[in-house]
Amino acid sequence: MLQNQSIGIFDSGVGGLTVYRALHERLPHERFVYLGDTARVPYGTKSLSTVERYAVENAQFLAARNIKLLVVACNTASALALPAIRRAVDVAVVGVIEPGARKAAVVAENRVGVIATEATVGSRAYSNAIHKFSPDCEVIETACPLFVSLAEEGWANSPEARSIATQYLQKIVETEVEALVLGCTHYPILRQTIQEIVGEKVTLIDSGEATAEVVAQVLLKENLSANLAHDSKQLSENRSLCDDLDHFYVTDAADRFARVAERFLGTHPARLEAIELWGKDELHTN
Amino acid sequence: MLQNQSIGIFDSGVGGLTVYRALHERLPHERFVYLGDTARVPYGTKSLSTVERYAVENAQFLAARNIKLLVVACNTASALALPAIRRAVDVAVVGVIEPGARKAAVVAENRVGVIATEATVGSRAYSNAIHKFSPDCEVIETACPLFVSLAEEGWANSPEARSIATQYLQKIVETEVEALVLGCTHYPILRQTIQEIVGEKVTLIDSGEATAEVVAQVLLKENLSANLAHDSKQLSENRSLCDDLDHFYVTDAADRFARVAERFLGTHPARLEAIELWGKDELHTN
Repeated sequence: MLQNQSIGIFDSGVGGLTVYRALHERLPHERFVYLGDTARVPYGTKSLSTVERYAVENAQFLAARNIKLLVVACNTASALALPAIRRAVDVAVVGVIEPGARKAAVVAENRVGVIATEATVGSRAYSNAIHKFSPDCEVIETACPLFVSLAEEGWANSPEARSIATQYLQKIVETEVEALVLGCTHYPILRQTIQEIVGEKVTLIDSGEATAEVVAQVLLKENLSANLAHDSKQLSENRSLCDDLDHFYVTDAADRFARVAERFLGTHPARLEAIELWGKDELHTN
Repeated sequence: MLQNQSIGIFDSGVGGLTVYRALHERLPHERFVYLGDTARVPYGTKSLSTVERYAVENAQFLAARNIKLLVVACNTASALALPAIRRAVDVAVVGVIEPGARKAAVVAENRVGVIATEATVGSRAYSNAIHKFSPDCEVIETACPLFVSLAEEGWANSPEARSIATQYLQKIVETEVEALVLGCTHYPILRQTIQEIVGEKVTLIDSGEATAEVVAQVLLKENLSANLAHDSKQLSENRSLCDDLDHFYVTDAADRFARVAERFLGTHPARLEAIELWGKDELHTN
């Protein structure tokens, strides 16, 4: 029964867990299968063709696990590789950029800030997406490259993170944006620090939460929502994050993934499996 | 003529440039070929088998370019993969850990600190190597995971880096070590910050500099030093860093490599080439 298949999620690593959390909260009766490509993280500093290849491989891995819908939780892959992913798999594909951009265009009338990795900022994917919904909106994009390691290493709420964030966000604050898009899956971990710096008047937009809303709409429209009456595994509405109905795969270093999951979600996956990238790489000169 | 072949250097990314700089300063009449595996960086969070496979592929790539000696500039690969690399290639292989450990054992009588990535600390490679030379020496190892991104993003001498380093180095300072090994290629970029915190009495040991000294000895012993009289390309003793006699390869994102090189060395490679990791990866469940 198609309705009771899982929703697939992939990310370049552990950051996509914030998207998983948002999906789980919005759709507590769905089950999920998550792939973190920890062997090849980060994507944000890699070239277009490399990101496309990795993203398609990840999508195909999840498609082979009978998913009913695929969420591309990685902003870099959403910015660069959605067309290639859609060509490669048969299920509906939802990226994180358009939902975040659309919500920003609804919330803000004149000025939106976007913070993301260098690659996402360089792609101008958020600016282009926001301008589709709100052509006259001014968009100020800034890369905050240290945020990822500050989040992963547990420094999100430290004075050092606040000081670094103050410098990264200076232009955003000066421009008096109405909304600020957290355009990298790691950034919601620094949400409190970021909100303190930009002030309570600025609406923070978590792309993961916006994406969960879009996924809920797609499931309804396509008649794909989980059917509790027909589920042999007794899906309930009161599932916990990371319980054994959700399956997590990583391409490397499962220990580290579990440790960072604990830091991000307060719990770690009951079912976590390391899969292998087969050893057929060769180095060739162009 | 074997003497006038290049010295090969590989690293997981851009950090090995500090080892290249140390080799270049110590051996100004040698030419170098450097491979930065920027498509698969970082190694420090990856598993043993993955690091071995990547390291062997890198070594074979350089061996095919007629090198006379191979320097493994990556601490993680030096800690985990030297035996596999030595089985895979025909030339002499020098890692960065044993030279740094030996120098520490000479400088310090009682207590040595080592700072490195989590993987290197976890491997206890420095402790084991130091104890080979000085069995009773107390070794205090600490991971400083944020140092890599602080160095690459240009925050090495910032107040935030000093504050973060003060916390990382607290135990090292309290233990009153006599010497501190910079056991990650990125850390020499933070040398000034680290020295300020541990105080002038502590000797900082740059594994790259110690490695350059060992390489100089091996070249002499094996009669492999560059022979200026027989070099058609007019090698001189006054070469600049990154001139066109040294050849740099990266597996991805050459632009970013050049930018960080500029930050680390004050210049960027005259000859920098992106090579491709061939697309034969497949994701398999174990």
